[in-house]
Amino acid sequence: RDPAYDRDPAAIYARSFAIIRAEAPLGHLPDTLHGVAIRVVHACGMVDVAGRLAFQGDVATAGRAALAGGAPVIADCRMVASGVIRRRLPAGNAVLCGLDDPRTDRLAAANGTTRSAAAIDALGDQIAGAVIAIGNAPTALFRLIEIIAAGGPRPAAILAFPVGFVGAAESKQALLDAGLAIPCLTLPGRMGGSAMASAAVNAIAAPNEEAP
Amino acid sequence: RDPAYDRDPAAIYARSFAIIRAEAPLGHLPDTLHGVAIRVVHACGMVDVAGRLAFQGDVATAGRAALAGGAPVIADCRMVASGVIRRRLPAGNAVLCGLDDPRTDRLAAANGTTRSAAAIDALGDQIAGAVIAIGNAPTALFRLIEIIAAGGPRPAAILAFPVGFVGAAESKQALLDAGLAIPCLTLPGRMGGSAMASAAVNAIAAPNEEAP
Repeated sequence: RDPAYDRDPAAIYARSFAIIRAEAPLGHLPDTLHGVAIRVVHACGMVDVAGRLAFQGDVATAGRAALAGGAPVIADCRMVASGVIRRRLPAGNAVLCGLDDPRTDRLAAANGTTRSAAAIDALGDQIAGAVIAIGNAPTALFRLIEIIAAGGPRPAAILAFPVGFVGAAESKQALLDAGLAIPCLTLPGRMGGSAMASAAVNAIAAPNEEAP
Repeated sequence: RDPAYDRDPAAIYARSFAIIRAEAPLGHLPDTLHGVAIRVVHACGMVDVAGRLAFQGDVATAGRAALAGGAPVIADCRMVASGVIRRRLPAGNAVLCGLDDPRTDRLAAANGTTRSAAAIDALGDQIAGAVIAIGNAPTALFRLIEIIAAGGPRPAAILAFPVGFVGAAESKQALLDAGLAIPCLTLPGRMGGSAMASAAVNAIAAPNEEAP
């Protein structure tokens, strides 16, 4: 055995989170979001991301309460769904992704939009009270905002980390500007991704922020 | 319908890749890696990542040939496996993740190491000729290097994007320093992640780099 690298999972987690706490700018965030920011940083390897997170409302508390009450997690893509650590979920919560719904292809064609946006419509009857985690598609976030702004079902919390060069920054700014009065956490700009989105879910799901 | 955002998947892809080609530093990379770098950038929203990729050998050609010949993709975590776009794989290739292997828990305990490292051992008889995609665990990459350096099975290509604060940078530097003479692509430093690793697989899998 080569002793040159850390092999103990608990020790690796503890050292990782100690480094993040020492380096990441958390001061602009409420205490309830520190654990969430730390896990998001852990997922991407960039401490400065903590300083760029934006939020509205008490998103960690609202999300945790919703999950404790049995609310589902709705993910915009399979990677986010697969990144949710099931043992952290407090109520055996469902983790849903509408891309696998048989209605999604038909809705995408009918609405002239992406499968990611149609997947939000396909799960429309699950949105009320849910925790929404978007880690890929700007169109999914745009569509969610449209549905809520039109008086549709209101999720308990929105974790918005769409990524990329067309619509990602715009969709996250639209969320912050929409005045939905729904607790949310987002990373403005192009950066984001499924690892950040599922890390945010995992942090909100369980108060023990520093366990695997 | 709100016409304020792009909804056409092909148009979104085309605009995204045009922006990346205009902004990302690709000049230090061989032509065969441009498409790979573009998809990695697309997955993380950061054009400067292209300029920091490091490689050895003709990793895109070697990886593509291996997949065309039916080689499996071995992922270190479920998120990487779920991010591999199956329709891009040229031979209905298997996408394997040893975390689900019943031997992994036993090997982790017996070897005093992480489940991620043990998962590499559990798939030991699949490593020869495979395309390895690591998007999470430094210990998985360290263990792979140990196996190869000890004269064990040799994969066709290694796509190394472990992420984080304990071992990620060190494991990627170890790969570059190990002299394994196996084609590889990596992002030195703390940054990485499952989205980058699966994007690299998806780029290598199919020559049409700019299709979903």
